[in-house]
Amino acid sequence: MQGLMQDWPLLCHRILDHAATFHAGRPIVSRMVEGPMHRTTYGEARDRALKVAQRLDRDGIRLGDRIATLAWNTFRHFEAWYGIMGIGAIYHTVNPRLFPEQIAWIVNHAEDRVMMTDLTFVPLLETLADRLPSIERYIVLTDAAHMPATSLKNAIPYEDWIAEADGDFAWRSFDENTAAGMCYTSGTTGHPKGVLYSHRSNVLHSMMASMGDAMGVSSRDVMMPVVPMFHANCWGIALTAPMNGATLVMPGMKMDGASIFQMLDENRVTCTAAVPTIWLMLLQHLEATGATLPYLRRVVIGGSACPRAMTEKFEKKYEVEVIHAWGMTEMSPLGSLCTIKPDYAGLTGEALLDLKVKQGHPPFGVEMRITDDLGRDQPWDGKTFGRLKVRGPAVTRAYFKDDTDILDERGFFDTGDVATIDPQGYMQITDRSKDVIKSGGEWISSIDLENLAIGHPKVAEAAVIGVRHPKWDERPLLIVVLKKDATAEKDEMLAFMRGKVADWWLPDDVVFVEEIPHTATGKIQKTALRERFRDYILPGSVAAE
Amino acid sequence: MQGLMQDWPLLCHRILDHAATFHAGRPIVSRMVEGPMHRTTYGEARDRALKVAQRLDRDGIRLGDRIATLAWNTFRHFEAWYGIMGIGAIYHTVNPRLFPEQIAWIVNHAEDRVMMTDLTFVPLLETLADRLPSIERYIVLTDAAHMPATSLKNAIPYEDWIAEADGDFAWRSFDENTAAGMCYTSGTTGHPKGVLYSHRSNVLHSMMASMGDAMGVSSRDVMMPVVPMFHANCWGIALTAPMNGATLVMPGMKMDGASIFQMLDENRVTCTAAVPTIWLMLLQHLEATGATLPYLRRVVIGGSACPRAMTEKFEKKYEVEVIHAWGMTEMSPLGSLCTIKPDYAGLTGEALLDLKVKQGHPPFGVEMRITDDLGRDQPWDGKTFGRLKVRGPAVTRAYFKDDTDILDERGFFDTGDVATIDPQGYMQITDRSKDVIKSGGEWISSIDLENLAIGHPKVAEAAVIGVRHPKWDERPLLIVVLKKDATAEKDEMLAFMRGKVADWWLPDDVVFVEEIPHTATGKIQKTALRERFRDYILPGSVAAE
Repeated sequence: MQGLMQDWPLLCHRILDHAATFHAGRPIVSRMVEGPMHRTTYGEARDRALKVAQRLDRDGIRLGDRIATLAWNTFRHFEAWYGIMGIGAIYHTVNPRLFPEQIAWIVNHAEDRVMMTDLTFVPLLETLADRLPSIERYIVLTDAAHMPATSLKNAIPYEDWIAEADGDFAWRSFDENTAAGMCYTSGTTGHPKGVLYSHRSNVLHSMMASMGDAMGVSSRDVMMPVVPMFHANCWGIALTAPMNGATLVMPGMKMDGASIFQMLDENRVTCTAAVPTIWLMLLQHLEATGATLPYLRRVVIGGSACPRAMTEKFEKKYEVEVIHAWGMTEMSPLGSLCTIKPDYAGLTGEALLDLKVKQGHPPFGVEMRITDDLGRDQPWDGKTFGRLKVRGPAVTRAYFKDDTDILDERGFFDTGDVATIDPQGYMQITDRSKDVIKSGGEWISSIDLENLAIGHPKVAEAAVIGVRHPKWDERPLLIVVLKKDATAEKDEMLAFMRGKVADWWLPDDVVFVEEIPHTATGKIQKTALRERFRDYILPGSVAAE
Repeated sequence: MQGLMQDWPLLCHRILDHAATFHAGRPIVSRMVEGPMHRTTYGEARDRALKVAQRLDRDGIRLGDRIATLAWNTFRHFEAWYGIMGIGAIYHTVNPRLFPEQIAWIVNHAEDRVMMTDLTFVPLLETLADRLPSIERYIVLTDAAHMPATSLKNAIPYEDWIAEADGDFAWRSFDENTAAGMCYTSGTTGHPKGVLYSHRSNVLHSMMASMGDAMGVSSRDVMMPVVPMFHANCWGIALTAPMNGATLVMPGMKMDGASIFQMLDENRVTCTAAVPTIWLMLLQHLEATGATLPYLRRVVIGGSACPRAMTEKFEKKYEVEVIHAWGMTEMSPLGSLCTIKPDYAGLTGEALLDLKVKQGHPPFGVEMRITDDLGRDQPWDGKTFGRLKVRGPAVTRAYFKDDTDILDERGFFDTGDVATIDPQGYMQITDRSKDVIKSGGEWISSIDLENLAIGHPKVAEAAVIGVRHPKWDERPLLIVVLKKDATAEKDEMLAFMRGKVADWWLPDDVVFVEEIPHTATGKIQKTALRERFRDYILPGSVAAE
């Protein structure tokens, strides 16, 4: 028997309608690429998003068409998302930090029909345009006064483009599983893979992200996503803020400490979110200037692990709650947040920091498992590692134009991370599954060993990889870059590490190198290291053979 | 084009799974009907709910079957809901405060197959059982030690009944639009009407209720629904609390001030919800004993309008935030909550109380309109009345076994209330649409006039009804019960009211009566008054004819 409740599809533009109806005057403040600050409201943004939808419709854009955006966080990018979604087209956020050839590959793979771009990226696109045959028109997110002369096809300033629409337009109706947005993951190997969000997944994800143990959003919040809209669906904030009627502050392209501080301070931001690198720059700015953060209450930190010292600085010195978070582009992206359960009420000092190095617990709508390589569930004891697998309405089941079945037999998506989960349900990432070292059937975390080695006063950088071993399958090799003018021996390194991890975790050997290779985004390029040390003979391994 | 996210139906038992997985040890505390307090956890509750599901399945209960519950808020009733939903059967909460013949009518209309009852209602059911032919078995929510001798068919104590199941059972899978729960509205006219919630509507409603501008729930909360599970879907709290991992405190059958205070205080409840009558009893208890509410942070008050003096007492004297709420059984039930938008940050004193007499603004997922009788939208100026209509995924589209189309041409449900909405989106109920007085095309609120008249020191009770008028269609008649030994004249009443409302609102006449008739739930029975004064001749109305 079916229930007798209304058929009300979960459509993203209903979020903007809600904001424009019940929080019409709430501000959206943007630092514009052109320079000055700009203020609008949800009411105005909805009116303009309707013009975007109407204009796209008049340009022949139809259900399922992809519209690329290469843009910073501003009100125009925000309006564009809703306008695109409101006719059932798909916003495709392209990360401008990718190599140009990757950008071209992604745009071609997505077959984007329109490119909306900030002024910043016009020169880049001019060099790429010949290789982007699917793009019929370039819309530059600016006004006529700032429009550059450009060779881009059918280029038009956004403001002129939407001025041709009168806004007398209604959102299109369609099924809630209709695709709404698209974001490619930049894997370390192979081509990028397209994640295709639906209206339903975006709406549900925003409801999940709003909850008290997630971001805990209300209309009293002033939210600033420093995380770009082109990075993992903006961590959902471009949808979560209007859903809750929270003020939205858009920092544009300036990510340095002084600029971010200015936005936080002038707009009295209460909740913000970005990767650790951003916060490092902010904290350095605060140290240098003596400025404080009297309005900021919560900072969501994810993308990579939040260093303990960063949490300590924010919480102790600036009295800002750190919410350590974990997610993936494939998860819309939030997976877990390290908010405090009542079991830990009153936790302070080192014990609190110990908790906050964990990536936390999921909201309703994210299921988690940790399994061994055979898919067997591992105990939630806070110690045993397992492959972290997730399931939920905002988790990917397949990639765009790719028939590969990526879910396990129970419908879970393998995150590629290795994690522990403790008895209270707090998850902690311990490694990437391709980096974990499998020694005699047991797993050793390369990240834990690296973090330990980096604590040695002479070490500038450290990497740990698994090297083939005839008896144990793999054993850890520690690769160290010493600080300038420092010298050290293998024994000194191992002596430093001994007693801080189980003895069988200790690296079998240590090599000192001049440099460790990095990816474009600054991560250690372990594939290159594994290649370089593929035939490395560990001490004792010949004897064992 | 469809998105590529996972198919993860919104099923209610997933809420309990989430609680049992990530908040396993969080308590459920109940005051038992048998007397003592009882403590369990979400982990245990899920295990026992699975036994309920398994046992129902073994008893031949199938998808779509209705299971009646006649029970107070306790952990057993909570488990039963999830066990029932988990096999796709439907919990049907029956309100024990209805007249016995209404209970029989409802159970027969729903064709309930099983009755789960608290000990309290065994005698009532024994007198009714002959008229409940669809009930195959009575399960008494108690253990063998407390089981009374009873004539009820196949009666068994709940604990014995679930002890026959080993819990090795998996929830059934089905579509998210499958019916999950049922609650009859007790209209003032005609038969009760069955509202049929779906899994989807219950889950979405819980997500909406969790948000920062609704109940603002987190795992740090201790939630006590004093509102019974048989009253308008427990205002969603039996689902919202476990969804957020909040502790659940179940007050059982004792609703007096001392008992409610004991539960609030011993369990350090942070958020509670009930109708004004309950809070009147609590406040009287606090006044009498000098007790305070150091742990309680929020009290959600709905069901009928929260008196201004009650809000003032809670907020000023006890420092508890009042969240004035409005909803309907047909809305799962939350429609709006009067939480403070940033526009009103810092509001204090009378201005804050002026705001808090309003029923507030809706969360994402509730759309509102106010229209005139012709369906034309009325301005949101905080003054113009209109029929309040709502739309959303947790709003009814039809009643059980009733083909009547109850939605308007845009798919909105007419709430039967008349309301204003102000420019900030705050809604205020001004009347029931059948009680509003329509004078010369304009609407006069009977409730506003009654509230005004009741302020006269000699008035014990007042009612205002519309009486037919040849020129104005209707004009207001004020009906007054004076306090004991008081005397007053029409002119004295009108003089008191003059200047406090528009002159054209002033009643055309005043009649003094010994008694005003009431419904079973204590509300003024306006239908009876309208009948009694049907042919009343207002002064001047003959001349106008």
